[in-house]
Amino acid sequence: MYNLLKGKRGIIFGALNENSIAWKVAEQAYAEGATFTLTNVPVSIRFGDIDKLAEQCNTIVIPADATSVADLENLITKSMEYLGGKVDFILHSIGMSLNVRKKLPYDDLNYEYLKKTLDISAISFHKVMQTAVKLDAVNEWGSIVALSYIAAQRTLYGYNDMADAKAILESIARSFGYILGRDKNIRVNTVSQSPTPTTAGSGVKGFDHLMDFTEKMSPLGNATADECASYCISLFSDLTKKVTMQNLFHDGGFSNMGMSAAAMETYTKSLEEEIKQKK
Amino acid sequence: MYNLLKGKRGIIFGALNENSIAWKVAEQAYAEGATFTLTNVPVSIRFGDIDKLAEQCNTIVIPADATSVADLENLITKSMEYLGGKVDFILHSIGMSLNVRKKLPYDDLNYEYLKKTLDISAISFHKVMQTAVKLDAVNEWGSIVALSYIAAQRTLYGYNDMADAKAILESIARSFGYILGRDKNIRVNTVSQSPTPTTAGSGVKGFDHLMDFTEKMSPLGNATADECASYCISLFSDLTKKVTMQNLFHDGGFSNMGMSAAAMETYTKSLEEEIKQKK
Amino acid sequence: MYNLLKGKRGIIFGALNENSIAWKVAEQAYAEGATFTLTNVPVSIRFGDIDKLAEQCNTIVIPADATSVADLENLITKSMEYLGGKVDFILHSIGMSLNVRKKLPYDDLNYEYLKKTLDISAISFHKVMQTAVKLDAVNEWGSIVALSYIAAQRTLYGYNDMADAKAILESIARSFGYILGRDKNIRVNTVSQSPTPTTAGSGVKGFDHLMDFTEKMSPLGNATADECASYCISLFSDLTKKVTMQNLFHDGGFSNMGMSAAAMETYTKSLEEEIKQKK
Amino acid sequence: MYNLLKGKRGIIFGALNENSIAWKVAEQAYAEGATFTLTNVPVSIRFGDIDKLAEQCNTIVIPADATSVADLENLITKSMEYLGGKVDFILHSIGMSLNVRKKLPYDDLNYEYLKKTLDISAISFHKVMQTAVKLDAVNEWGSIVALSYIAAQRTLYGYNDMADAKAILESIARSFGYILGRDKNIRVNTVSQSPTPTTAGSGVKGFDHLMDFTEKMSPLGNATADECASYCISLFSDLTKKVTMQNLFHDGGFSNMGMSAAAMETYTKSLEEEIKQKK
Repeated sequence: MYNLLKGKRGIIFGALNENSIAWKVAEQAYAEGATFTLTNVPVSIRFGDIDKLAEQCNTIVIPADATSVADLENLITKSMEYLGGKVDFILHSIGMSLNVRKKLPYDDLNYEYLKKTLDISAISFHKVMQTAVKLDAVNEWGSIVALSYIAAQRTLYGYNDMADAKAILESIARSFGYILGRDKNIRVNTVSQSPTPTTAGSGVKGFDHLMDFTEKMSPLGNATADECASYCISLFSDLTKKVTMQNLFHDGGFSNMGMSAAAMETYTKSLEEEIKQKK
Repeated sequence: MYNLLKGKRGIIFGALNENSIAWKVAEQAYAEGATFTLTNVPVSIRFGDIDKLAEQCNTIVIPADATSVADLENLITKSMEYLGGKVDFILHSIGMSLNVRKKLPYDDLNYEYLKKTLDISAISFHKVMQTAVKLDAVNEWGSIVALSYIAAQRTLYGYNDMADAKAILESIARSFGYILGRDKNIRVNTVSQSPTPTTAGSGVKGFDHLMDFTEKMSPLGNATADECASYCISLFSDLTKKVTMQNLFHDGGFSNMGMSAAAMETYTKSLEEEIKQKK
Repeated sequence: MYNLLKGKRGIIFGALNENSIAWKVAEQAYAEGATFTLTNVPVSIRFGDIDKLAEQCNTIVIPADATSVADLENLITKSMEYLGGKVDFILHSIGMSLNVRKKLPYDDLNYEYLKKTLDISAISFHKVMQTAVKLDAVNEWGSIVALSYIAAQRTLYGYNDMADAKAILESIARSFGYILGRDKNIRVNTVSQSPTPTTAGSGVKGFDHLMDFTEKMSPLGNATADECASYCISLFSDLTKKVTMQNLFHDGGFSNMGMSAAAMETYTKSLEEEIKQKK
Repeated sequence: MYNLLKGKRGIIFGALNENSIAWKVAEQAYAEGATFTLTNVPVSIRFGDIDKLAEQCNTIVIPADATSVADLENLITKSMEYLGGKVDFILHSIGMSLNVRKKLPYDDLNYEYLKKTLDISAISFHKVMQTAVKLDAVNEWGSIVALSYIAAQRTLYGYNDMADAKAILESIARSFGYILGRDKNIRVNTVSQSPTPTTAGSGVKGFDHLMDFTEKMSPLGNATADECASYCISLFSDLTKKVTMQNLFHDGGFSNMGMSAAAMETYTKSLEEEIKQKK
């Protein structure tokens, strides 16, 4: 550990259990000298282990539904009180789609669910920033990060309306990044992370097979939750003060691969079997 | 004229008056031998001149609010009846933001307005496609195009939540493009057009100055509505059958320019004046 | 056929035999009313069937090594003489890597070969344009297209230094597109085509298996040489006058796919076999 | 300082004088606990102040022409001897164009100069990596960074053939990043830095005016050489182990801006003057 976040304060959204990326970010931020509050929706607080994390990081949990501006006002105000000042970093790690959960295919979306997907997974990011700005809650040279996924750029069967949510999430990072940079020298970025076996990630259809594919396609293999947390720490630190409005791939190289020898080898085996059977 | 769309049927959304890109598309599609219906929301039908266009193109106007699935069902069903079969192309040229209209800045968005922006400007595109698929209304090798803008990739001050709407619009084109391609050989693309002095475009703050900048930055100058229509015709024609899930810049080269000599010349004049005044 | 290129003159580089994309472009350009000359290096003229194509398209073959400015001057001058005026379109379909041919891996490149790869596959495109400009050989609103491949953006094992050649080819299209657009209203684009079983394409290692993968990943399947030719025709036509400096994917949607159900199905079969065998 | 590079060894190419980004990287790497060698071509060593830097960082300078494999072999071998083992990081900060220096415009390039531009500014990066791999000179989880510029994606008048050099430089990072990641868990990235008033940067035509434009366009302003060095440190550290094959914009947000209020304000002043004069 390097004391990279010594004296910095933050708010971390989305830690459910020890598989969560937000959980790992909290652990590492704590080790790097930061103080922060934790938050999640009440149902996730009950369902998960966030209280254990709070204890471990010597902090508190402030429940908040990130789609509710009132909840966010309460969260941010209380966080500043508890932490003794404005915050320097925010992590947004929130995503949920009822269309995915209820297995509605993309050409049979429920539009009320779609609105919820967008509200929870993307617009909440805007609400966090708008509320924080109105409460003047972020220090100059602060750093705001949201977690995204390559589905924002490329279609993966089964990822459904979460792809659209990630696309608008990344757009919000750009749009608000301009305003916050210009007015307050605050940076806003998204991290586009490898598929990660968190509770949220695992919900997606065929997730294990996809993870094997991306593992073999990525020269460095899939990035883990722990590695993602380290990357987020670098983005919260003073080493990256002029990086803003970016979507940063943290994926072992997957995003810039067309085809690896390893993935092709696995693929080819089936293919040759298919060809044999046709004869 | 080349008879490029001979025998093809379509639906064109969003013609308001003769400045509209959709208007030009209708004119050229007609000249290229297509038959199609026209549609817009009732208020735009009253406010604009679409009836004149219908007469000119020997067709009918079927009013529809593109955010209403019921309206879309009616539109698509009636279009197939009127045209005598399934359609081969659809143009989506719809965008509106109350946050822009009411001059609410991006860090003070009204979230009800934001929902409307997204519903009208982007989710409507999903609704059009989902409804069309359910009614089995599009022929194999059909072509669906929505109009977009570079704000989906890069932030322009004043473009506000329309940037986020365009980002999700383009994502919807990719997500649905996969399904429609796979299942029905239908292609889906967005055209990212130069700023165009339509009734919609002109609403954006500082639009004239921006158009001068993009004119000087673009080696071929801004693309006009008429030129955009020609490009759409090429995308509806059989010349582009394997182009899908793409966002296609139609902008005289603007999107890949960093700085042109012409734009720098204008910029430099002010700059030198500024420097002089500081001395 | 639509008479899309009626009255237009052109030069087509790179037709070897009837599998060549350039061959298909010539056939379709001829059918669309264009007149043009054909060219290739002497060795390819002897090895291939270009004379047959010339006969079919009622034109001549003018040999030229596209890395030789003198050859290009001769080609362009003679083409204007033969065609009776300046040209309206140019197709550049040239690529060759001795590192690929000699199976030198990317971490053991022969740098003399690399220079040749770049000179033949990319810098030749600059030379064609620079020579044409100096000879004032291209009409206003002319259209210049080079064929590229997604390896310019994403690494495919085995594609080797051709990836770097395609990256600089696309950069040259942008750099020169600015100059030609600004000075002469000429547009320059690259078409990034699906893997295509041409004589050149087939040289790449594991090409058949890769083509199966891209076929299953692409919602519309791989684009064929014929379809690519149609797309090039649209880019030479007056329908696309304001499209410039772009790299246009013509690939059935591949470039914007992260994972398709069909590709995953094939992949999964092997994977399950692998897992079984490990137990 | 955080001891981020404690125990790490490196090689830093391209420090000329205290304006150089490589100079700042050396200073910060030293402060972060790294040991490294410095290198540059003999003429730059004589012309610049690198010996002063070596003294300051308690190290040596090993002259090398990065286009010469023999020189690179000598450099890398001697570096390992001096440092007592394999290296963990390499910085490539090399670029030069005789076409730019001799003011040859892009449509009148000297092709011998172009070859040199590519050899010095891009292929040298391949040579560094190929030589290092052959000498087994880089530790597992090592990090290799080259400095790039947005001209690789977007054309800036006057940047000339350096744009093409940067495009291929970034491609080489991807192509080699796959191999080095797969075989040795080494990552390779490029940093696309704001225009920076180094000795190299200042050579570009109209550089000061461009820097004013990018300063006003970028919400956080242009990134300085010192800030770029901090970012490079983060990329050499263990915080970014799964980031590879990426081109990372370090530019205060410029790359994702379409138009800022500040840049438009300056632009508009001239524009209004132009309009007035036309009347």
